[in-house]
Amino acid sequence: MNSIGKLITFEGGDGVGKSTQAKLLVQKLSDLGKKVKFTREPGGEKIGEEIRQILKNSQNIDPVCETLLLFAGRRDHFIKLISPWINQGYFVICDRFYDSSLVYQGILKEVPINDIMKLKQIAVGDFEPDFTILLDASIDVSMQRMFARKITNDDEYDKMDRQKHELIRKGYQKIAEIFSFRYAVINAEKSEKTVFAKVWKALENTIIDGD
Amino acid sequence: MNSIGKLITFEGGDGVGKSTQAKLLVQKLSDLGKKVKFTREPGGEKIGEEIRQILKNSQNIDPVCETLLLFAGRRDHFIKLISPWINQGYFVICDRFYDSSLVYQGILKEVPINDIMKLKQIAVGDFEPDFTILLDASIDVSMQRMFARKITNDDEYDKMDRQKHELIRKGYQKIAEIFSFRYAVINAEKSEKTVFAKVWKALENTIIDGD
Repeated sequence: MNSIGKLITFEGGDGVGKSTQAKLLVQKLSDLGKKVKFTREPGGEKIGEEIRQILKNSQNIDPVCETLLLFAGRRDHFIKLISPWINQGYFVICDRFYDSSLVYQGILKEVPINDIMKLKQIAVGDFEPDFTILLDASIDVSMQRMFARKITNDDEYDKMDRQKHELIRKGYQKIAEIFSFRYAVINAEKSEKTVFAKVWKALENTIIDGD
Repeated sequence: MNSIGKLITFEGGDGVGKSTQAKLLVQKLSDLGKKVKFTREPGGEKIGEEIRQILKNSQNIDPVCETLLLFAGRRDHFIKLISPWINQGYFVICDRFYDSSLVYQGILKEVPINDIMKLKQIAVGDFEPDFTILLDASIDVSMQRMFARKITNDDEYDKMDRQKHELIRKGYQKIAEIFSFRYAVINAEKSEKTVFAKVWKALENTIIDGD
């Protein structure tokens, strides 16, 4: 879909290993001599950081307001970093993209999915990830990993209870079904190495060889 | 349209006297024993203030990102203040509302009007101001007033050149035509008192008597 570079996104609940796998992919592509950039959401430049602070500091933020802020950050991130990199021929590896809003704000917080798709269209137009890896793990495995990473209570996603984790997991499985043309669902409960072998296989066949 | 309280908004370019006229209206309604609240955009509570800071501090912010941020602030302002006040039977007098985005982001910065209307629907649904006063003044009068108020260069709207002022003025006239059922266009070049007499006449006939 994107004629020059490619956007590969990682999705999944907290503790499934998105950032670990994303970094392994960056290393692998780099070793193969590909031009590659890593980024994450909410991120980008100054505005993205400021929006991240608002989201972190706000207790009980209204879900629609939160969604609008996330898409403002996404727009900034897209216009300033992702889109220029794609146009320069990079593989862009992104930890979360708009699918996260479909799950966290849409399915979990009940912001209408239709509104989220409208915001997606306003913020990034017809642009879509070329490929998305969903890392799927049971709640117990995810929670053990978050515990091991000593994640503290300054991140709302980590305070969620089991029921919410389950809703997020099922939500992602649904999104992967809807966007099956660009998704690979990968069991993320094994070792980093085993999981990465599957990530690479999924990408090698459909994305990397074809560039 | 709003069954309990009423929202009356003031619109127009900078220097036309919106906040002066809004405050005169608040005083008048208060003198008549009405329950009244004054507010302004971008405003509301903590999130609104933080968004205002991002907008002030960002050089050359992307117009779509700016629009998403403004609607995030508008949503917060609406959910936390305007909507509860309306439900408690207040006259809410607001200095700017979403029409400002139609003019400043839509007409001036060319964000598609259709996208702005979608954002309006996402942020506040079918809610509309009960009545809007457009204060209309020539560029020369507006600029003289801004000069008299010693507005300095920390506000992007005040740095705009004549051509932009003209675009804003014509933009508002267009919006007032489209939403003529809720708009009164008032010549704002006369004295505060003369202008307020017209403001009051427009509101008395259509809004205040009917409550």
